[in-house]
Amino acid sequence: MTAHNERRSWVDSANGHPDFSLANLPLGIFSRPGLTPRGGVAIGDRILDLKAALDAGLFDGTARQAAEAASGDSLNAFFALGAPARRALREALQGLLDADSLQRERLQALGETLLQPMAACRLHLPARIGDYTDFYVGIHHATNVGKLFRPDNPLLPNYKYVPIGYHGRASTIDVSGAAVKRPNGQTLAPGASEPSFGPSKRLDYELELGIWIGEGNARGEAIPIAEAGSHVAGFCLLNDWSARDVQAWEYQPLGPFLSKSFATSVSPWVVTAEALEPFRCAQPPRPEGDPRPLPYLWDERDQQAGALDIELEVLLLTDAMREQGLAPQRIALSNTLNMYWTVAQMVAHHSVNGCSLQPGDLFGSGTLSGERPESFGSLLELTQGGKQPLHLPSGETRTFLEDGDEIILKARCRRDGYPSIGFGECRGRVLPAA
Amino acid sequence: MTAHNERRSWVDSANGHPDFSLANLPLGIFSRPGLTPRGGVAIGDRILDLKAALDAGLFDGTARQAAEAASGDSLNAFFALGAPARRALREALQGLLDADSLQRERLQALGETLLQPMAACRLHLPARIGDYTDFYVGIHHATNVGKLFRPDNPLLPNYKYVPIGYHGRASTIDVSGAAVKRPNGQTLAPGASEPSFGPSKRLDYELELGIWIGEGNARGEAIPIAEAGSHVAGFCLLNDWSARDVQAWEYQPLGPFLSKSFATSVSPWVVTAEALEPFRCAQPPRPEGDPRPLPYLWDERDQQAGALDIELEVLLLTDAMREQGLAPQRIALSNTLNMYWTVAQMVAHHSVNGCSLQPGDLFGSGTLSGERPESFGSLLELTQGGKQPLHLPSGETRTFLEDGDEIILKARCRRDGYPSIGFGECRGRVLPAA
Repeated sequence: MTAHNERRSWVDSANGHPDFSLANLPLGIFSRPGLTPRGGVAIGDRILDLKAALDAGLFDGTARQAAEAASGDSLNAFFALGAPARRALREALQGLLDADSLQRERLQALGETLLQPMAACRLHLPARIGDYTDFYVGIHHATNVGKLFRPDNPLLPNYKYVPIGYHGRASTIDVSGAAVKRPNGQTLAPGASEPSFGPSKRLDYELELGIWIGEGNARGEAIPIAEAGSHVAGFCLLNDWSARDVQAWEYQPLGPFLSKSFATSVSPWVVTAEALEPFRCAQPPRPEGDPRPLPYLWDERDQQAGALDIELEVLLLTDAMREQGLAPQRIALSNTLNMYWTVAQMVAHHSVNGCSLQPGDLFGSGTLSGERPESFGSLLELTQGGKQPLHLPSGETRTFLEDGDEIILKARCRRDGYPSIGFGECRGRVLPAA
Repeated sequence: MTAHNERRSWVDSANGHPDFSLANLPLGIFSRPGLTPRGGVAIGDRILDLKAALDAGLFDGTARQAAEAASGDSLNAFFALGAPARRALREALQGLLDADSLQRERLQALGETLLQPMAACRLHLPARIGDYTDFYVGIHHATNVGKLFRPDNPLLPNYKYVPIGYHGRASTIDVSGAAVKRPNGQTLAPGASEPSFGPSKRLDYELELGIWIGEGNARGEAIPIAEAGSHVAGFCLLNDWSARDVQAWEYQPLGPFLSKSFATSVSPWVVTAEALEPFRCAQPPRPEGDPRPLPYLWDERDQQAGALDIELEVLLLTDAMREQGLAPQRIALSNTLNMYWTVAQMVAHHSVNGCSLQPGDLFGSGTLSGERPESFGSLLELTQGGKQPLHLPSGETRTFLEDGDEIILKARCRRDGYPSIGFGECRGRVLPAA
């Protein structure tokens, strides 16, 4: 099915592709036996090799500069170029891949040199991540988790003033598909007076939006909120794997540490800010009585068009389901509209103290749960801290993740009259502890 | 004054040098007009240029490999080689620089090509820092800070089981000498019901030991405590600048964020684990009644010889003191023996969940205060949260840092019969907010 205003491509599989039509064109780093890791662009079931496209002389001017920056083994240099370069490359690619492209025959003749079959390629982390920051802007998640500790007063007094965030571990961020070894750690068993050591018994996932920083800011110079959007290169899915029992014991007073630093997974494709333009919308109004944010976090245009309408999904596939030939079971359906703060507010806040953001830095949004259980983005919430097991079509139940369980995050934007934009998948399967 | 067993060098300024005698030989990255940033070794008032030494063919075998890895614009590759390479380079350098070196005349003839005057050089960050982790192992600091919030129960229940730490910001770590712009941020004034925005009014320093990670560990494979020491390349001074008013408002529930991420300063020289060997000692016995740590944190040899005896100093120089020609005033004298956990315990804990440490990662120890006010490593402690001003020889008082104030951290190891080992300085001057 093709949306009425979808441009058609001569790459057949792109037309009506739910994720990677000509309207998306996300960037990533791929390799294939014989091809070292390099920048590529997803189109249908193919990956356009930017190095091969450059060798064929397909780009000029700013688009050429952008393609060169994106053709190495990471996208950092491309991210650093900012929005004009991204736009120029996007327009050039849309022209080249359009069904009516004047160069169509020449490009088709290049065959797999230009367009690698995605299924034969391996995908890598799209950038070298300098710093990773995890936010906490999913207000329903913050409320749900707060309720487990403070039933009467779930949200702390700072929540509606401060886009809460903390520094995460960059060295353990993996691309989708990497297995996740269950972490060992210290935990305090219920009723115990002393901690014990062993594999986490409360392993969980967190459904998050990942945000790739493009152009950085100079040290000491805050990014004004009106300019914050232009510092974002693109988006991905992010699974902030969490060991809840380790977290509960370690997190006071300095925050989560080993309960998170064993693994974070991201989807491989960077869906650009430009591709998501049609899915920008107004930030949902703050509930009656909520304070107005401080001026450095407030921009009318950002409030009117700075939110994102992206459907988010969590699926679970257990070993027993695999054996029974069952498909992954959807266990949550949520949306980025559950963010209490916009991405621009996160960027403005992060830099307001003069902290320098750098191309390739990664933000996580925090868990994006909705208001109702079907939309809860973690097992902690779905099972009420392990008290209400989840029932699976295999006849199994789950409170937290078991070895062999695979979590699959998906994201897609849909809007009447527009081609859909997909993020691809963020997958990770749990392996037994060491 | 030269210790009785100090080896003499033909570099005259090294003999009896309180910081950089032949017994120390710390590594760093330096540049000079006409010389791009490169690895060097401090010796007296000189820096030995490792690239020039390689060009002159001064090293063989493992020492040559180590010097090559250390001769670029960061020490990461050198750190990755681990202890055998560090030892080989150290022995080769001690042989070359010894007063009785057979190559003395040839080396002296190289003059400034080999030995740059330190005063004419600029020092840089010694490594590209992948991840920065700040611990909280100074038990007197944790107790002092805890008392401000919980007078009856200052230490949380996990403190004596868990070497508490959190992820810090890597992009804003500077080398000594870089100015520190006072951060802007959200704070909740005493008695106010809503936060306000502006320059921090409670800017503070924190006296910490910095720990440079050498050889890393494979993802998913914990570093056993008995091997943890061999993953540490060396040490530096670290100032964890802190905006206390921002911190108090933002830190719940996920820990410090913008209150720290505006700046962290480190001293430029990496004092190697080998140079500090004579200053290893037994970990001070745990107070009666303290629990024995879990087995993954316990190693008899580490308890007997894994602590460090390093004298630490904080000095303050204000604008008025500068105008009056006064010297920096010492405001604290402490020691690394105030660490409740050893460095090996920190490394073992950090990796026990499978988190990969990488060459060039940096740890901060946490503030190393002693038991008495003269040894408190932050103004928060020295002034009891701003209630008891510090009196300075200029006639001024301080509760927190004012614009123009400069903080200078120093560290030195002394032991009868051994040459002293100094760390050099970690300096930073406060500039007005943007």
